[in-house]
Amino acid sequence: RIMRPDDANVAGNVHGGTILKMIEEAGAIISTRHCNSQAGEACVAALARVERTDFLSPVCIGEVANVSAEITYTSRHSVEVQVNVMSENILTGAKKVTNKATLWYVPLSLKNVNKVLEVPPIQYARKEQEDEGKKRYEEQKLDRLETKQRNGDVIFPIINPEPHTVGYSQSSLIHLVGPSDCTLLGFVHGGVTMKLMDEVAGIVAARHCKTNIVTASVDAINFHKKIKKGSVITISGRMTFTSNKSMEIEVFVDADPFVDEPQERYRAVSAFFTYVSLSKEGKPLPVPQLLTETEDEKRRFEEGKGRYLQTKAKRQAQMQQAAR
Amino acid sequence: RIMRPDDANVAGNVHGGTILKMIEEAGAIISTRHCNSQAGEACVAALARVERTDFLSPVCIGEVANVSAEITYTSRHSVEVQVNVMSENILTGAKKVTNKATLWYVPLSLKNVNKVLEVPPIQYARKEQEDEGKKRYEEQKLDRLETKQRNGDVIFPIINPEPHTVGYSQSSLIHLVGPSDCTLLGFVHGGVTMKLMDEVAGIVAARHCKTNIVTASVDAINFHKKIKKGSVITISGRMTFTSNKSMEIEVFVDADPFVDEPQERYRAVSAFFTYVSLSKEGKPLPVPQLLTETEDEKRRFEEGKGRYLQTKAKRQAQMQQAAR
Amino acid sequence: RIMRPDDANVAGNVHGGTILKMIEEAGAIISTRHCNSQAGEACVAALARVERTDFLSPVCIGEVANVSAEITYTSRHSVEVQVNVMSENILTGAKKVTNKATLWYVPLSLKNVNKVLEVPPIQYARKEQEDEGKKRYEEQKLDRLETKQRNGDVIFPIINPEPHTVGYSQSSLIHLVGPSDCTLLGFVHGGVTMKLMDEVAGIVAARHCKTNIVTASVDAINFHKKIKKGSVITISGRMTFTSNKSMEIEVFVDADPFVDEPQERYRAVSAFFTYVSLSKEGKPLPVPQLLTETEDEKRRFEEGKGRYLQTKAKRQAQMQQAAR
Repeated sequence: RIMRPDDANVAGNVHGGTILKMIEEAGAIISTRHCNSQAGEACVAALARVERTDFLSPVCIGEVANVSAEITYTSRHSVEVQVNVMSENILTGAKKVTNKATLWYVPLSLKNVNKVLEVPPIQYARKEQEDEGKKRYEEQKLDRLETKQRNGDVIFPIINPEPHTVGYSQSSLIHLVGPSDCTLLGFVHGGVTMKLMDEVAGIVAARHCKTNIVTASVDAINFHKKIKKGSVITISGRMTFTSNKSMEIEVFVDADPFVDEPQERYRAVSAFFTYVSLSKEGKPLPVPQLLTETEDEKRRFEEGKGRYLQTKAKRQAQMQQAAR
Repeated sequence: RIMRPDDANVAGNVHGGTILKMIEEAGAIISTRHCNSQAGEACVAALARVERTDFLSPVCIGEVANVSAEITYTSRHSVEVQVNVMSENILTGAKKVTNKATLWYVPLSLKNVNKVLEVPPIQYARKEQEDEGKKRYEEQKLDRLETKQRNGDVIFPIINPEPHTVGYSQSSLIHLVGPSDCTLLGFVHGGVTMKLMDEVAGIVAARHCKTNIVTASVDAINFHKKIKKGSVITISGRMTFTSNKSMEIEVFVDADPFVDEPQERYRAVSAFFTYVSLSKEGKPLPVPQLLTETEDEKRRFEEGKGRYLQTKAKRQAQMQQAAR
Repeated sequence: RIMRPDDANVAGNVHGGTILKMIEEAGAIISTRHCNSQAGEACVAALARVERTDFLSPVCIGEVANVSAEITYTSRHSVEVQVNVMSENILTGAKKVTNKATLWYVPLSLKNVNKVLEVPPIQYARKEQEDEGKKRYEEQKLDRLETKQRNGDVIFPIINPEPHTVGYSQSSLIHLVGPSDCTLLGFVHGGVTMKLMDEVAGIVAARHCKTNIVTASVDAINFHKKIKKGSVITISGRMTFTSNKSMEIEVFVDADPFVDEPQERYRAVSAFFTYVSLSKEGKPLPVPQLLTETEDEKRRFEEGKGRYLQTKAKRQAQMQQAAR
């Protein structure tokens, strides 16, 4: 679809969250269709996880985003979908790859939302494809367990913070979950959550560096618990790390199912977003260094540095391989 | 209401689809109100058909669109509504007629959506008004049957197409039907469908001529089958004909009610949109000729030429009549 | 227009904020049109103040809201607009008055947004209408000055608050101002701000009483400073007072024009919203009493009580007058 002014920031760059939302919608459609392709109980595919994804080039207002999706692996209870986004300038005809994302979905019964159904198997062109898919499946399963454990953190507000400290840029947003945010089962679309997360992360990044910023990448996101229609969700973000030209922001989503039930607030999702700052000509700008004060902030900075160096090393290895 | 940036293209011209959506909402309100004006079963008026409509002048961001609607004819089971749109520049006070559209609605029971109710008759000021209305009613009934028959076509994707061929500009868009897209009966508003159709047609037109384009007219649209909430709809468009200064695009809407039911994908709507290309000063520009390759494409081009010449002849006849 | 699921809460009651937004749009159209009705510099009318308004009956999904606006007084530099909202059930034909609101607008030059232009005078049917309008004008001018002075308050977050305390339900929301939120001058529509304020106030009310809540009234709202496109606005709400069946919530809007300029965060708007809690049958429910802890909270509770008793006395006087 054509990118509209509301999809973009004041500089005309489309929000990463808008792209993530389109990706998720395409994934939900293809996996729901697949899981209903055999006779049996009707179901809706719910997003369980998005693998790390890079935003390779910014999309602008007026361009057309082409989204294509393909099922690449099925386990007994989950579907792996590969989604590619191309942006196309329909005036010049120029096309660019914007995103390649991998998403995992789980089919939930339309009658009983707590029941996970079985996924019809797909045919693989080659045996290796199935083996590689299985490897990816095992890896993501492990990672999901790990993030579930470290998921207890809470962001406390800081009064009168200094510029460039963690407390200065941290932000939170509340959103009342409306009908358009939800699937047929009455639970929030994963894409809606990701769009709000990107919005908070973008505000944190802009508060820190006070320039035009764009999403560069999103680390793997795990959706631990569903969020029901009518809930209030609080999305909080804080900066964890800065390199010379990038900022890492940790985002938490907490849900308050407060109208219907006496249930407690719970952590639904958490993830790391990486942003870069761009000049008016679209060149990356240096970023002010994050000032860490407490022990926790210093520890998180070091962990962020670890993720940054690991990603950098991986990318260099890929480029060397590609160059051979 | 005031036209917003999201209602318009990058050149600031409001999308024809936004106007069509406002027209349909006004028509749905007036006809639902009329059909419930007598004691009896409650109903919601569903759009059955929109007559050919011309976009007489483009509307811009910041202008106010005034929509007025009037019931002009009732048959036993249908209502004809005439909707006029005026755009008003509230800074200068200038007003222009933008559209005159004729829509046909059918009242469906709120309890049983497959039951068509009876329409309370209206009073005509003069006997001729009733006779003319009846003539229009018979004509549209015939035309609806005809389009139903030729409705089986499918758009296949073409790999590496040449510029200005049919395959080069053809486009499709997938949309998951959400709650705000639907009436009280849980079916998609006709206006929502038309807005999406205009969006696809606009992408086809822009891909072909790579300039700023605006909707010039929409041929009669027939709504054969309802589309249910939760369906996935695929809207596809392909160019069928070009004159020196206009492009005709055929648009299909296919619905996949894939979650609930074992039902097959079906063709819900089809229509022809005509676009013109505008220079920065708002003057019509010449359009590159459509290159037809297959027999089918050549046949459709000739048919499009037929429609174009017929419309042109009709307009000249009207102008001569007006000049007398 | 027809009320959609997205306009309403889970119980199907349309948000007060949606109604306020429609009211403001109607007021902006009529006053901009009036201020441009004479030759001279083009201008856009900006919302300066909304008088206290009561929500007389809840509107539901599927109903049609009819908005009508009329200019009732002009001073040299401001326009008073009276807006009435009727909700209409187009199935039964039943109509109810939903709102009567009075808004004040100021014409700002399209070329220089800091220049207030002169308003063309209107003709009054009777001399008394002009005198009464002048009286209303003087009163609101005084009230605007007063709220400007008490406007310095800030909401501090509270950690681990007890249920029914002020800290327990207080909430805040951040919003990045997009193009569709703004007028032609690039400043936020007053109606957009009011919709967000109602959203926050509603979340505060729901957090306090954990039931279905609806907006009962909004106290006079003054728009002290404009908010520019690209700003981040923080909308914060805290409960100030509860009677047996109502809750008063104070809402602040702070703007951060952080991208463009080195300007400080500033208070743009503040207001009091009153909510009631409704049972499933639409009857008012008792509300848990607000627990006040600090001296400030106790003082604000007493002030809220004063406003509550004053409004109650005024309403009784009106009813007695009406009964005579």
